[in-house]
Amino acid sequence: MTDSKHTVNFVTPRKFIKTFKKDCKETFFPDEPFSKFRHDKLLQKVKKTIQYFIPIFEWLPRYNLHLFRYDVLAGITITSLAIPQGISYARLADLPPIIGLYSSFVPPLIYTVFGSSNNLAVGTVAACSLLMHETLGAVVSPKDDPTLYLHLIYTSTFFTGIFQTALGFCRLGILVDFLSHSTITGFMGGTAIIISLQQMKGILGLKHFTTRTDVVRVIQAIFHYRNEWKWQSFVAGLVFLCFLQVARYVRQRKPNLFWVSAISPMAVVAVGCLYAYLGDGEQHGIAIVGDLKKGLNPSSIHYLNFDSRYLPATIRAGAVTGLISMVEGIAIGRSFAIIKNEQIDGNKEMIAYGFMNIIGSLTSCYLTTGPFSKTAVNVNSGCKTPMANVVQGFCMMLTLLFLAPIFSYTPLVALAAIIMSAMLGLINYEEMYHLYKVDKFDFAICMAAFFGVSFGSMDIGLLLSVGLSLLRALLYVARPAACKLGRLPNTSLYRDTEQYPETMSLEGILVLQLGSPVYFANCSYIRESRILRYINEEDAVTEYRTEHILLDLSGVASIDMSGIDTFIELIRVLKGKHIKLGIVNPRIEVLEKMTLAKFVDVLGKKAFYLSIEEAIQSCRFTMDTSTKEEAWGSSKTEDVV
Amino acid sequence: MTDSKHTVNFVTPRKFIKTFKKDCKETFFPDEPFSKFRHDKLLQKVKKTIQYFIPIFEWLPRYNLHLFRYDVLAGITITSLAIPQGISYARLADLPPIIGLYSSFVPPLIYTVFGSSNNLAVGTVAACSLLMHETLGAVVSPKDDPTLYLHLIYTSTFFTGIFQTALGFCRLGILVDFLSHSTITGFMGGTAIIISLQQMKGILGLKHFTTRTDVVRVIQAIFHYRNEWKWQSFVAGLVFLCFLQVARYVRQRKPNLFWVSAISPMAVVAVGCLYAYLGDGEQHGIAIVGDLKKGLNPSSIHYLNFDSRYLPATIRAGAVTGLISMVEGIAIGRSFAIIKNEQIDGNKEMIAYGFMNIIGSLTSCYLTTGPFSKTAVNVNSGCKTPMANVVQGFCMMLTLLFLAPIFSYTPLVALAAIIMSAMLGLINYEEMYHLYKVDKFDFAICMAAFFGVSFGSMDIGLLLSVGLSLLRALLYVARPAACKLGRLPNTSLYRDTEQYPETMSLEGILVLQLGSPVYFANCSYIRESRILRYINEEDAVTEYRTEHILLDLSGVASIDMSGIDTFIELIRVLKGKHIKLGIVNPRIEVLEKMTLAKFVDVLGKKAFYLSIEEAIQSCRFTMDTSTKEEAWGSSKTEDVV
Repeated sequence: MTDSKHTVNFVTPRKFIKTFKKDCKETFFPDEPFSKFRHDKLLQKVKKTIQYFIPIFEWLPRYNLHLFRYDVLAGITITSLAIPQGISYARLADLPPIIGLYSSFVPPLIYTVFGSSNNLAVGTVAACSLLMHETLGAVVSPKDDPTLYLHLIYTSTFFTGIFQTALGFCRLGILVDFLSHSTITGFMGGTAIIISLQQMKGILGLKHFTTRTDVVRVIQAIFHYRNEWKWQSFVAGLVFLCFLQVARYVRQRKPNLFWVSAISPMAVVAVGCLYAYLGDGEQHGIAIVGDLKKGLNPSSIHYLNFDSRYLPATIRAGAVTGLISMVEGIAIGRSFAIIKNEQIDGNKEMIAYGFMNIIGSLTSCYLTTGPFSKTAVNVNSGCKTPMANVVQGFCMMLTLLFLAPIFSYTPLVALAAIIMSAMLGLINYEEMYHLYKVDKFDFAICMAAFFGVSFGSMDIGLLLSVGLSLLRALLYVARPAACKLGRLPNTSLYRDTEQYPETMSLEGILVLQLGSPVYFANCSYIRESRILRYINEEDAVTEYRTEHILLDLSGVASIDMSGIDTFIELIRVLKGKHIKLGIVNPRIEVLEKMTLAKFVDVLGKKAFYLSIEEAIQSCRFTMDTSTKEEAWGSSKTEDVV
Repeated sequence: MTDSKHTVNFVTPRKFIKTFKKDCKETFFPDEPFSKFRHDKLLQKVKKTIQYFIPIFEWLPRYNLHLFRYDVLAGITITSLAIPQGISYARLADLPPIIGLYSSFVPPLIYTVFGSSNNLAVGTVAACSLLMHETLGAVVSPKDDPTLYLHLIYTSTFFTGIFQTALGFCRLGILVDFLSHSTITGFMGGTAIIISLQQMKGILGLKHFTTRTDVVRVIQAIFHYRNEWKWQSFVAGLVFLCFLQVARYVRQRKPNLFWVSAISPMAVVAVGCLYAYLGDGEQHGIAIVGDLKKGLNPSSIHYLNFDSRYLPATIRAGAVTGLISMVEGIAIGRSFAIIKNEQIDGNKEMIAYGFMNIIGSLTSCYLTTGPFSKTAVNVNSGCKTPMANVVQGFCMMLTLLFLAPIFSYTPLVALAAIIMSAMLGLINYEEMYHLYKVDKFDFAICMAAFFGVSFGSMDIGLLLSVGLSLLRALLYVARPAACKLGRLPNTSLYRDTEQYPETMSLEGILVLQLGSPVYFANCSYIRESRILRYINEEDAVTEYRTEHILLDLSGVASIDMSGIDTFIELIRVLKGKHIKLGIVNPRIEVLEKMTLAKFVDVLGKKAFYLSIEEAIQSCRFTMDTSTKEEAWGSSKTEDVV
């Protein structure tokens, strides 16, 4: 069955520098970006490197009119969404509405040059707008000093850009991996709840409101100012909301009619503007946006404010919103890339977002990324390349140059309805239920974000949820799964005795499988609680005394000093109990360290086996021999007696 | 070879409550404390439970005169060490020297009742004394307001006790596991360096000194006050230090003469006192301790200070020193328990330390634990039970009642020499070199603590080092090891192709082994970088197109939602490439989640295999069939043509 020619391969440990290089490559360059043109000539290499770093050079030469037709349609559709969303989200961040329009002009153009996703539509996002408001509003009141507040927003956007670019250049895409899907689901749900509730201000036409963002305070504020409630506003809001929800329902039912949902916000704005302009809505309790000047983005370089009083807040807001917006963008980009069987590169995306925000912060834009809703509309409208963003930018330019003043009649209640409708779609009940059914810990992570955001603040929710995720990751390694193996009848397969109850135990031999790196956080647990406890249990249950213990290390990918020390101690403890230790199938990294730490010399190379079967045969052989010797010894004693 | 009767066991997933209970048990009660008397009668159970929680009831009934003789000898020996160490470390924390003596009276008695180690000798420790001084000295100057400072020390000791007791009751012994051996080695080394350097104040007889603890400031301070250097003090210090080092050397060479090293500090103190008393040392630049009153510990209940101004500092000092002293005590306790083949219980130890510090803080003691040096001397002197601590307490009581004033003549330079000599033994060069040879990352963790403590502060060093350890733990799981398996010639064993270069590749079948939990932090890496990259590499190298990919999940102990979503996406991606996915030997936890998440239904139960061999036979069969069909199909086409 097993060919005895093969033995465990005790290679000389690889040089540190070699394994270190390999580990660094795996950590920072898992995608091997340059492997594809390793064998090309120099000039070709330079060209491909430029194409690699600036993706537009890769796809633009192949661009043609056929693709352009699709992109124009998609671009126009997302513009019709970008105008109301831009104004709404800017108001969410307590910024002049025009900033929202500016932010849909420059950043999409930058993304077209550096972005690697064909599907992403660039724009502002609700959650980060609110988060910026929450963080910076605590330092400077947007009511009392709107200019300073605006400048801090630019500065914070600038830091977001620097942060994202730096992460991209340092190839720290790995950071994004630590915000799990469960965290995002909960965070989005919680954010949607509080943003929706806040929109009651616009729907009810309130003049005063709280700046707090937790559910309790917001609801309190709604009822506290009930003397300001305006029924006209409420009725208009309800109508708009119903219309938007019906449009969304139509899209869900008939995916071909996606454009109904896509242009519905624009329709709401148009109807609202008409009503406010013709019906003199302001007289009837319908407040409007007001004051939208014609003209393109002015420069905002000299507005960046690096005053040390505000620096901690701006840097913090920049880093947190940078991370969240990046995760949102990369997550949506990845989802559509998988559907379309394309590839996007997390690190390149970060750099693209970074440039987009740096240049944005210098041209009167605030934080942009790839929002869920807009990107989905973009894909549904048939976009083919990032050119759709250029079309969006161009349409927005025309709007800014000629149409902006029209939108100043947009009623606030229309914007509130648009935001609320968008937010209601972000609460993913099914996903939460699914998490609950399949993985309770993931559900807890999700709920931590959800309730943390709704009842605490966005930071608290995020920290709680990420903390729980990390705790789980650490528990995975601190309490590694180990199991006892038994032989499946009539085979040479050894499987978990709990999973396969038909397995047979091996008289006097205990086979344990460890399934995790062995290192400082789990080594004393492995020794004291797993291995020694299994021996005690085994001795209590069976009539045979355990004479051999075999550790199957196939699943142990890594070991550290404390782990090796633990094994050395284990040999000593087992010797006291007259039990022999055998190691089965150690992997290369583990064996290298064991060799370096002289563990192999202490245990002896003979105790390392390539397979469980081989190890058991060897153990049986020594047991037979010793039994015979004992028998011989005792009979001899009897003779003497 | 493989009996086809056995298949993967698709059990119904276990109830959540069942697995949750099991996980909790593994996390908090890995030692199954009550399993031993599960079948006893009620009265017996109560008795054994009391014995379990208060270990003295377990060993005292079995205690006899024979054991007592050993313990008396050990107790007297450790007292001779406790007096100079107590005074020295109290001075290190800038406390009245008598507090050090008080701390060697009450806490050892408490430990005797609750402690589970037969070897531990209770006393104050250098590192935590300094750490308390560093943290609390920053809030209240021990020079300007010694009374308040002393009260804060009591309060902080009280919090240490509360913290340790709470951790013990919550069964959070797991926290101790996160301070790795490498961290402790580096931390102790760094602390030893700065404490040694600080002793230059005593050795040189300086009156003024810095309160900073980093190497640079301390050396600056030594030279800044060079006009205060006293040669008499320096010569005496050098003589004492040489004597102590020789005594240590003797012990290392001849372990039987351990008592030479054990009583040498007491000898130094005795000689110093004699010299100071008879030779009027103070006139000749030899400062003495001064003012040690007779009498037992006074109560200090009413000195606990819960003023909110100082609370953050006292709580922080309490928690940090609590954790470190606990790790030091448990680590040394474990080491000796292993040597003597005994068992100690981390959680019980924590509770014992906690009670010891709570009651200590109420009786004018400061932080105590089981110090390395004292415990080693205790074991060498032949201690058998915690009774040695009672003897220590009794001797210390006699000292406090009758001998204390004698020790007021102890020269400071003698204490400095004692501390310095003890510290020099704590720098474990060999261990550091060993770490460097075997595991560079562990070495980096150790050096982070070492240099962090020496050049920054103790907090910085500890945080840096623990941070690096956690980072490593997270990297283990974020970048899991995966490897390609090949068949060893003439066997049915499949092993890593890198480790065993003689393995043969399997035409058209790619076998990958994953060796880590699959979850949010690594799932996109696993999919994009590992699995898909392996397929590309395989297709580039071999002439066969990959038709089947088999994932060996034997080493995957756990999976979360993101991991399962990744596998579901993987099926879709592979379908696009016309590659079939097979899962080999999923473990019970993984299979349960896969069933719940309907992954099993999506992939089909036929694609789950019990062994690689079985999977490959099945793949070969389908490949043969399809080749025949193709051949048949093409021949048919040819016929038509």
